[in-house]
Amino acid sequence: MSSDFLEIAPEIKYALADRQPVVALESTIITHGMPYPQNLETALAVEQVVRDNGAIPATIAVIGGKCHVGVAGETLEHLAQTGLNAAKASRRDLAAILVKGLTAGTTVATTMQIAHMAGIKIFATGGIGGVHRGAEQTFDISADLTELSQTPVAVVCAGAKSILDIGKTLEVLETNGVPVVGYGTDAFPAFFARESGFGVDYRLDTADEVAALIAAQAKLDMKGGVLVANPIPEADALDAEEIDGRIAAAISDAEKQGVTRKDLTPYLLNRIFELTDGKSLVANIALVKNNAAVAAKIAAALARQG
Amino acid sequence: MSSDFLEIAPEIKYALADRQPVVALESTIITHGMPYPQNLETALAVEQVVRDNGAIPATIAVIGGKCHVGVAGETLEHLAQTGLNAAKASRRDLAAILVKGLTAGTTVATTMQIAHMAGIKIFATGGIGGVHRGAEQTFDISADLTELSQTPVAVVCAGAKSILDIGKTLEVLETNGVPVVGYGTDAFPAFFARESGFGVDYRLDTADEVAALIAAQAKLDMKGGVLVANPIPEADALDAEEIDGRIAAAISDAEKQGVTRKDLTPYLLNRIFELTDGKSLVANIALVKNNAAVAAKIAAALARQG
Amino acid sequence: MSSDFLEIAPEIKYALADRQPVVALESTIITHGMPYPQNLETALAVEQVVRDNGAIPATIAVIGGKCHVGVAGETLEHLAQTGLNAAKASRRDLAAILVKGLTAGTTVATTMQIAHMAGIKIFATGGIGGVHRGAEQTFDISADLTELSQTPVAVVCAGAKSILDIGKTLEVLETNGVPVVGYGTDAFPAFFARESGFGVDYRLDTADEVAALIAAQAKLDMKGGVLVANPIPEADALDAEEIDGRIAAAISDAEKQGVTRKDLTPYLLNRIFELTDGKSLVANIALVKNNAAVAAKIAAALARQG
Ligand SMILES: [Mn+2]
Ligand SMILES: [Mn+2]
Ligand SMILES: [Mn+2]
Repeated sequence: MSSDFLEIAPEIKYALADRQPVVALESTIITHGMPYPQNLETALAVEQVVRDNGAIPATIAVIGGKCHVGVAGETLEHLAQTGLNAAKASRRDLAAILVKGLTAGTTVATTMQIAHMAGIKIFATGGIGGVHRGAEQTFDISADLTELSQTPVAVVCAGAKSILDIGKTLEVLETNGVPVVGYGTDAFPAFFARESGFGVDYRLDTADEVAALIAAQAKLDMKGGVLVANPIPEADALDAEEIDGRIAAAISDAEKQGVTRKDLTPYLLNRIFELTDGKSLVANIALVKNNAAVAAKIAAALARQG
Repeated sequence: MSSDFLEIAPEIKYALADRQPVVALESTIITHGMPYPQNLETALAVEQVVRDNGAIPATIAVIGGKCHVGVAGETLEHLAQTGLNAAKASRRDLAAILVKGLTAGTTVATTMQIAHMAGIKIFATGGIGGVHRGAEQTFDISADLTELSQTPVAVVCAGAKSILDIGKTLEVLETNGVPVVGYGTDAFPAFFARESGFGVDYRLDTADEVAALIAAQAKLDMKGGVLVANPIPEADALDAEEIDGRIAAAISDAEKQGVTRKDLTPYLLNRIFELTDGKSLVANIALVKNNAAVAAKIAAALARQG
Repeated sequence: MSSDFLEIAPEIKYALADRQPVVALESTIITHGMPYPQNLETALAVEQVVRDNGAIPATIAVIGGKCHVGVAGETLEHLAQTGLNAAKASRRDLAAILVKGLTAGTTVATTMQIAHMAGIKIFATGGIGGVHRGAEQTFDISADLTELSQTPVAVVCAGAKSILDIGKTLEVLETNGVPVVGYGTDAFPAFFARESGFGVDYRLDTADEVAALIAAQAKLDMKGGVLVANPIPEADALDAEEIDGRIAAAISDAEKQGVTRKDLTPYLLNRIFELTDGKSLVANIALVKNNAAVAAKIAAALARQG
């Protein structure tokens, strides 16, 4: 890609040239995930977790019509303050947002896309998008799954929120040839809860093993990514039954109020926040930090393995 | 691709080498869209619209086992007379049709494919295929959507016919990362009608803006296309309610007569022609010309932007 | 791909360098398809059929963490004895299986993938995976269909087992642009039976014609494969109605016993074996040999056409 649209921070550019470990971080959590200044504090804390675990953080966002890899200082402050006034960039949005010169948080799909352009192989996020409940009627399936099938970046996440249809999400990943690895677990996690009732394809217990898998995918010239499912720490996990009850309540509220399509996911997440007295946000921050730590360890292992 | 199967007319070859604006045009409208000589007259008129708006038309068809880019004179006359005796080439058909030495109209998918082989970036057509009504049970989804997700050609169309499930069609495009641009409109159009009840991802009001978006997609190395939705001119539009009623009547007739699968779309289009006293064909020609004009302006803008 | 993971037998390496005809063969039929020593005898017999028809067989399997192209002698004996203790490698499994140093039979998807890495263009198997019955609710669709849409290898098979939803399977292949060729037939076959009630896209009656189609796909730079549907020989075919009755009985037994998801296909195949008094296995071996013969003839024709 021409440098017209890509701006890589010097620290990250040198790290990549030196084959040092780098971890990409997404930015819809900053723009759309929580209010200012909590979003800024969380972004900085997550970056620090990456550094503490031996890698360099590369927060990715679109700022004023450029894809920034490494957002810091005043620019990060600006992004955090823009908040919900920023756009949200998935793959289909990226070109339009760039030519309009807008600022946007990047979804899992677009963060993968930009990370790959920059040469970054590991990316930490909260949870991925997937097949929406009812998709057998609506065909509403996140572009994150398409991106995982075509972009060779490993995504460390706490599974998928159970507002999604996790069974169908795993079927699509299987059809698309994306390995689903459980980090220290046989259970595919459900974001706030450590288990979803579904299993993973492979359990790997160390960062070295995951790094070896990612390296093998690259040697095999696999065009797709790897999903590393890393459950929320036990101390931070919400009770699976409780959270499922809250989600069911939120879905029922949405139906009563006629909330559908694009408005549904933000509505549900906010309603779950209310129904859990804010515990869902605390859990969200904990799991993102946990994913950042694991991603950093995997990136470091990958750099060591050469 | 080896020149075994590709025959580019000299005017178009030189235009592409000189980076002059070229617009691809499809040929199932010639072979399967209307009878001779109306199909020939329409093809010539649409080519003239492209020239009048500053670009060179490249009608694409398969003739005697070669992909022709630029069909004119006696060859166009021959194609128009062959009409329904020609094959219809989608991506899965192309190799078989070529090795059998057949003549075929090219669908949206295959016109995109051949345009891309020839180096043409803009293509004007009537409407795209999509997710068929009932596809949640039949899995009947047009290869046009797959092609849009993997071939970097911009398609200017008047949306999708409402014999399709437009909501699901837009969901699949979103999942596949294809930008859906409204040309001077916020509403995704429904072929004969200016609005479908669904919106577009981005509204752009000038050819220059669309050209900039297409150029950005290329710079970002996006492997997929762009869908430019250009509503039928107001003077030619059919009343949305009236046409929806006609479509419902046609679908009900098809059910009564047991028409299904491959026979369904041609049956419906013909029945809609009858039920609208031919107004649907007049509208069809008007919207294709309108798309050709917009595509030519976008191609010219893209050439200017260099 | 680096040679870290790929081990091509010398005979095959030289044959490929000399552009001699080579046919890939899969290995889940060896590990998971039948017991020792019948699996070994069948594997050797199928290889002999390939040689008798003018090509070199390349049985593909993962052995001790390497992709072997050409498994013979003691290694084949070892694979056959490992049997159900071997893993089963689809695209999503391959990297994990390699880094764990495991041994695995390769599915249609992964055999295509490894054949393509080695430069082999033709592959013979029994039947492909597809859209599972009930997939409109479960989203259970084989990765074989994805592989056919993205890997340029021609797969000679006896269609798809009617434990699958064959109509939906053909729709997905159409959407993905994969040509479905009938070898000497207009009917898409149903594995044990010569007809499924569905047609093929194109009927081709000679190996030369199929080879020309495959060569054209390559010249057109098509990224996907070709499905060559070759019905089971008449003498070996099971009666379509009888086998459909047995399949229905097996499905009903599975439901009664609560067998689902990954356990379902092996359960059904075994139950069908029992319900047909073993005739299904005899038919299976006959059709695989028949496919190997046709694949060898196509590979030879492709080599001749140069
Ligand atoms: Mn969606
Ligand atoms: Mn169809
Ligand atoms: Mn499956």
